Amino acid sequence: MNFVVKVIGRVESSLQRREDAPKQGEEGAPLAVLVFEPEMQEALRDIRVGDPLILITWLDRADRTILSVHPRDDRARPKRGVFSTRSQDRPNPLGLHRVTVVSLLAPGRLQVSDLEALDQTPIVDVKAALPGRTE
Amino acid sequence: MNFVVKVIGRVESSLQRREDAPKQGEEGAPLAVLVFEPEMQEALRDIRVGDPLILITWLDRADRTILSVHPRDDRARPKRGVFSTRSQDRPNPLGLHRVTVVSLLAPGRLQVSDLEALDQTPIVDVKAALPGRTE
Repeated sequence: MNFVVKVIGRVESSLQRREDAPKQGEEGAPLAVLVFEPEMQEALRDIRVGDPLILITWLDRADRTILSVHPRDDRARPKRGVFSTRSQDRPNPLGLHRVTVVSLLAPGRLQVSDLEALDQTPIVDVKAALPGRTE
Repeated sequence: MNFVVKVIGRVESSLQRREDAPKQGEEGAPLAVLVFEPEMQEALRDIRVGDPLILITWLDRADRTILSVHPRDDRARPKRGVFSTRSQDRPNPLGLHRVTVVSLLAPGRLQVSDLEALDQTPIVDVKAALPGRTE
């Protein structure tokens, strides 16, 4: 049994290629813009500058058939099952990113820091980051 | 544009109804069992007792048409756009849970603590929880 995940927006970023992107957002990611579909306006209405958010993306350039990987693409490290890693290659390539809102550029356009996702990556969900919580 | 998310397993829990479930896992959730599809074995192979994991579920009893909610179902609190909350009602009802592996019951069956998801909730992804990281 399967479900359909709707694309509710896209990432705009200067990161164009997988090999250019940092492995995690705090490892030197540039500012990026989240561009949402117009019908998401009501869901976005309480987001403010400075809010920490959990962004969930669909990593559309990942390989969904891969079940084990060398961590951080380092071939010197033994392969691990992908569920013990943060590899983007996995059966459902969901990307999990903690970002901070830097500015509200226009309705449905949020500038954020610490996002390692590539340009045009689909956005599928946004959640409040809970204080003191680790996910 | 949309994507198909595959159900890779199910939650087994004593929580049967949405009104019985705690809002967050650390608010008194019972032990639960994650039961994976047999073809996920390779992806699971490095998971050990004690591992902290990020579990992503598909909250199949949520309402995908809802864009604003009273936080924590408290009608005394003003409505907020769902992207500033952890409501399960949202356009793509992805559940984000930090759990700890308590025991390995059998191949593809992991007992975990701190999971507030209802019985039979579909599982869509599992990731390593990164030390010191907040998602």
